[in-house]
Amino acid sequence: MNKPVPITEFVGTVKYGDTVGLVITNVDSVLRDKMGLDKSHRAIGIISNRTGAGSQIMAADEAVKATNTKVVSVELPRDTKGGAGHGCLIILASEDVSDVRKAVEITLDNTERNFGEVYGFEAGHVELHYTARASLALNKGFEAPIGKAFGIIVGAPAGIGVVMADTALKAANVELINYSSPSQGTSYSNEIIITITGDSEAVRQAVIAAREVGLSIAKSMGENPISTTGKPYI
Amino acid sequence: MNKPVPITEFVGTVKYGDTVGLVITNVDSVLRDKMGLDKSHRAIGIISNRTGAGSQIMAADEAVKATNTKVVSVELPRDTKGGAGHGCLIILASEDVSDVRKAVEITLDNTERNFGEVYGFEAGHVELHYTARASLALNKGFEAPIGKAFGIIVGAPAGIGVVMADTALKAANVELINYSSPSQGTSYSNEIIITITGDSEAVRQAVIAAREVGLSIAKSMGENPISTTGKPYI
Amino acid sequence: MNKPVPITEFVGTVKYGDTVGLVITNVDSVLRDKMGLDKSHRAIGIISNRTGAGSQIMAADEAVKATNTKVVSVELPRDTKGGAGHGCLIILASEDVSDVRKAVEITLDNTERNFGEVYGFEAGHVELHYTARASLALNKGFEAPIGKAFGIIVGAPAGIGVVMADTALKAANVELINYSSPSQGTSYSNEIIITITGDSEAVRQAVIAAREVGLSIAKSMGENPISTTGKPYI
Repeated sequence: MNKPVPITEFVGTVKYGDTVGLVITNVDSVLRDKMGLDKSHRAIGIISNRTGAGSQIMAADEAVKATNTKVVSVELPRDTKGGAGHGCLIILASEDVSDVRKAVEITLDNTERNFGEVYGFEAGHVELHYTARASLALNKGFEAPIGKAFGIIVGAPAGIGVVMADTALKAANVELINYSSPSQGTSYSNEIIITITGDSEAVRQAVIAAREVGLSIAKSMGENPISTTGKPYI
Repeated sequence: MNKPVPITEFVGTVKYGDTVGLVITNVDSVLRDKMGLDKSHRAIGIISNRTGAGSQIMAADEAVKATNTKVVSVELPRDTKGGAGHGCLIILASEDVSDVRKAVEITLDNTERNFGEVYGFEAGHVELHYTARASLALNKGFEAPIGKAFGIIVGAPAGIGVVMADTALKAANVELINYSSPSQGTSYSNEIIITITGDSEAVRQAVIAAREVGLSIAKSMGENPISTTGKPYI
Repeated sequence: MNKPVPITEFVGTVKYGDTVGLVITNVDSVLRDKMGLDKSHRAIGIISNRTGAGSQIMAADEAVKATNTKVVSVELPRDTKGGAGHGCLIILASEDVSDVRKAVEITLDNTERNFGEVYGFEAGHVELHYTARASLALNKGFEAPIGKAFGIIVGAPAGIGVVMADTALKAANVELINYSSPSQGTSYSNEIIITITGDSEAVRQAVIAAREVGLSIAKSMGENPISTTGKPYI
């Protein structure tokens, strides 16, 4: 079989999480209204995936820093293909399709790196994200304060995340932004997710401390947590 | 092991989606109240499955056209056995068990055909449904206008569905009834689902256009989408 | 590889459901407030798992009967690793870590037994729980009347649960406490869950009748339901 010629809406994929990037040059006006876009949002960019949310949203954050695009919405289906967490749907918009195409490309390029801090194992996952300076995608998706250091700490099944959260908050002088649990703030995922801000080195230390305790619990359970890409970056 | 003798409540199964049909001749009155049935609903029919919703609801729509039964409720669990979509629970009711048994049988008979337009692939699915004349099950489940042509367009992961929706609305002069996304109108599934109505040929053309672009995106992703039954019918 | 030394927060695991027990000696005060704990809740115990809710909550109920601990919260993620049901996160609290550690140990010890009445099969599951005397965990998680006999009846896909519910209510003179379905009272799981109370022998008979009809439907579907542990206890 010959490889199919990609259609014009197709931008690319990422090796991890069934992540796909798409664009629409001039979105149908009825659909635009139903999606909650405004009239200036003629071109939209789409990042959609089955597994992961933090990795893609962190990546989109880099994209909106570098392009003239806006984050219209971030939605978190209960997914991960039978895993304990979320998938993700990010809609970016701009007047011009070249802007959103560039933004989608940057998001795809950055997503792979972020999977380096997603540690999967049979019973669940431990996931960390860190940036020295949050922008509009993280603000939209996780209420991150713009321009400040920001960290995301995730443990699944949820009990692992409780201990990771406690450890992070004790490890450094950081501010807790949100605490999400199966019945509140998640889409009924089996995760505790906390988000933190503060001095960049403090946020980084808190994230690292959470990672260590999360991986230790997994190992105590007899699990073998491994970085999705084999390249941790924090 | 001998094959067990089916119990009286058992009507049958469908090869796809773990779909089962059941009846209760005279539902317990306390349960009837808790289920929101009214006193005349002595007999109930049940269609329940792990994978699929459109296929079963479309099939139930044929059943209520042909029998003296009422659609009491349509519920959409987040399921598909680790897939991106929904399962389904449909409750039909009548005064007489022979009516609901007949309705359940018709539903089971029609469900298989409808799976012909469910295209599965490793990363998600593309799903289409079309009828020239919607009835009470589609009205209950999807707010379809009774007696009019009606189409359902589904793409997963959700980003595929956004492009399918845009393509459908541009392809023919149809009216958008609903746009459902992971955080609104679905049970946190990783799907975009739109429903459309209008002139029957226009609805059919919109559905076909959505199918083509959905399958093209899947192929661009390196996926191999295939009809569940091998028999597309639209 | 040497077996890792468990960290201090780790109490143990159960063979079934990816169940883990954890403790925190002195929970961070900011986290404590976000979790809705009060100031006296210095030590917390955590039971967290991917598959099962009834088994773990029933077990926690025995734990709070036997220790000076309080059930702070019971949350039900949509999980079971691609199955039709829930996972569970239970938070116990006390002033003293030795109390919560003991409670977590008792919960882990009792969870395995309860999986004896969880019957899995390819298309779904049938699950039963019974106690002659409900306590605070069942009250928190399922609104069980404290000190009374209590039963939980679960069928998946949900249609099986409808027939199980009807059969149970007809089998004995019991009171229906709750009827939960995919769109109401569950986390969009593909289950019907009913809870019942009444005279202890009546509750037991209702649970047994529900089990028989649930297993019969599964067999009529061509499924082979088997007890998770091989040791039914009701």
